[in-house]
Amino acid sequence: MLVDGKEMRPIWLDGDHRTVKVIDQRLLPHDVVIMDLRTLDEIIYAIQEMVVRGAPLIGATAAYGVYLIVLNAPDPSVPEDYLTAESERLKAARPTAVNLAWAVDRMVPAVRTAKTPGEKRSAALAAADEIIQLEADNCRRIGEHGVALIRELRDRKNGGTVNLLTHCNAGWLACVEYGTATAPMYVAREQGIDIHVWVDETRPLNQGARLTAWELGKAGIPHTVITDNAGGHLMQHGLVDMVITGTDRTTYTGDVANKIGTYLKALAARDNDIPFYVALPSTTFDWTLTDGIREIPIEERDPDEVRYIQGSDGGELRNVLVPPKDSPAANYAFDVTPARLVTGFITERGICRATAGDIRRLFPER
Amino acid sequence: MLVDGKEMRPIWLDGDHRTVKVIDQRLLPHDVVIMDLRTLDEIIYAIQEMVVRGAPLIGATAAYGVYLIVLNAPDPSVPEDYLTAESERLKAARPTAVNLAWAVDRMVPAVRTAKTPGEKRSAALAAADEIIQLEADNCRRIGEHGVALIRELRDRKNGGTVNLLTHCNAGWLACVEYGTATAPMYVAREQGIDIHVWVDETRPLNQGARLTAWELGKAGIPHTVITDNAGGHLMQHGLVDMVITGTDRTTYTGDVANKIGTYLKALAARDNDIPFYVALPSTTFDWTLTDGIREIPIEERDPDEVRYIQGSDGGELRNVLVPPKDSPAANYAFDVTPARLVTGFITERGICRATAGDIRRLFPER
Repeated sequence: MLVDGKEMRPIWLDGDHRTVKVIDQRLLPHDVVIMDLRTLDEIIYAIQEMVVRGAPLIGATAAYGVYLIVLNAPDPSVPEDYLTAESERLKAARPTAVNLAWAVDRMVPAVRTAKTPGEKRSAALAAADEIIQLEADNCRRIGEHGVALIRELRDRKNGGTVNLLTHCNAGWLACVEYGTATAPMYVAREQGIDIHVWVDETRPLNQGARLTAWELGKAGIPHTVITDNAGGHLMQHGLVDMVITGTDRTTYTGDVANKIGTYLKALAARDNDIPFYVALPSTTFDWTLTDGIREIPIEERDPDEVRYIQGSDGGELRNVLVPPKDSPAANYAFDVTPARLVTGFITERGICRATAGDIRRLFPER
Repeated sequence: MLVDGKEMRPIWLDGDHRTVKVIDQRLLPHDVVIMDLRTLDEIIYAIQEMVVRGAPLIGATAAYGVYLIVLNAPDPSVPEDYLTAESERLKAARPTAVNLAWAVDRMVPAVRTAKTPGEKRSAALAAADEIIQLEADNCRRIGEHGVALIRELRDRKNGGTVNLLTHCNAGWLACVEYGTATAPMYVAREQGIDIHVWVDETRPLNQGARLTAWELGKAGIPHTVITDNAGGHLMQHGLVDMVITGTDRTTYTGDVANKIGTYLKALAARDNDIPFYVALPSTTFDWTLTDGIREIPIEERDPDEVRYIQGSDGGELRNVLVPPKDSPAANYAFDVTPARLVTGFITERGICRATAGDIRRLFPER
């Protein structure tokens, strides 16, 4: 995507074919810093510390992680037990995002079936590139399908501005290109449809205020940052036409794990008869889980992510403590929105309702 | 209330009878600084800039405001047009809290009926003291009525810890003593009932993280600070037994204006069959409004309160910018929770359901 006239992705492989380059998303929007990842430990650090985040990007990073496992194997024949142990270590980096395991499980057989050390390296690289291209293509298609919903709202408003609300960052920074929740917004922009986006700041890590606002600003899309508390009020007063979010894991029955607070927005959307859509590539579906609330593991992160807030103090990044220094905090990273509150899914194959039957009809091979 | 062994209120009149002393709540919890207010302009500044906040405390401050109008009148006979103009200016300081107008409307006739300048000053002081004592007494009674609900939950859990969730600060800092939403918590503590409080940080101004956590910590009540996004997840997983909030204005039909985000918690409580109570002195009822969502004016404050967050950086207070510097923000201060989502009100006269009939039965004189 364009950043100040320069084409950019949140992840790419350097020309040396040994270094994975990523935008350090912890420093956005105030600093754009590229971090080099050369080992599996560095890949795991980047995933755990949220240098990279967002379900599809975690998948893409994990794909390069397996490539680095192969590249750096002490025994270049990449013995089976080593490959298994290292990939399991990678899969354990974060518990909620299903794309992490999905990408690793797709990479490993490609490595396994290749024969010579050189072939294993080429196979791993090809498989990683394929995953990344697949995510980029999926996002573009999500945008093309999703824009139909925005166009319909525009027509119903006789050409008036369509007000969207999104939570967290499910933009190109979370993916490779276009994003998931933002893809219909970028395509709407290409097609000259007037939109305005309410951006939930998304505490504790403020991915909405820091990342989504930055992306939309760079693309020239009108937007307003709001607290996570504000959406209900806006919906009560007719200021939101549709909610679109991403997801970190969605059961095949339609329950949506996404950034903490998504469930509250879904409740408000339902209470005010506002469509609530979730945009996702099919790589984010979990085809094994039935009950999202009971079965999806919810990551608990460091309470200091709640207690300290990072921002710019005249250009310098600082962490400031908000509550009393001896007050404990809790930091649940995700919540689960039950399928009954989801109007529909926007996928690379089209739009469907949040039911097992409708999802299967779109993905009959699963 | 006790702060480090010292009895404290958030507002008092100095021994000179000319200076209103308030805790500057903008600096809590990191600094406890007392501000002197000697003129109506200073009173209005304190209310607008949220040196003082919370419906009952705004009322108490406004009462002293009218006293200062009288004390500082250029013509000591306090001419009617001067009294009216100055009180109207005071009432306009913040639009949502009903206690502001209520206190002023109670003060002005007391001043008007007194005859000599000396009598006017005494009458104003007596009326202000009476309002402040009334608020303190009301809060104590709210605590005594509300604790019955907590005791019931404790018994249902066979003596297990009762988990409460509260939004914003409706504690003694927002009132004079005990608070409204916190009053049942303090009384539960006195009675040896085990409670634990989930404290919504309450963006944008973090009154939960800064003020409620500070109050509860000083009182030794176990609590955990959470993001405003987390409550739904906690409720889905059985970790909240009851929600108690305060309110800035409640219609006689039961619609509750309170800090932005309250509505989202009420929706989640309803979705998970968790009781949602609002604690308020009857001074916070608005006996003229029928439809809270349409009729209660919602204050829009400076967007920089959303964009910048204040915290302590190694003991020094700093404001840090979170979103990109050119991203706009919006700052709605309150939302309205419709009566249908409110389980009941905890008032100084007892507990009632959120219907016009039940409220009138408790306050038949209105």
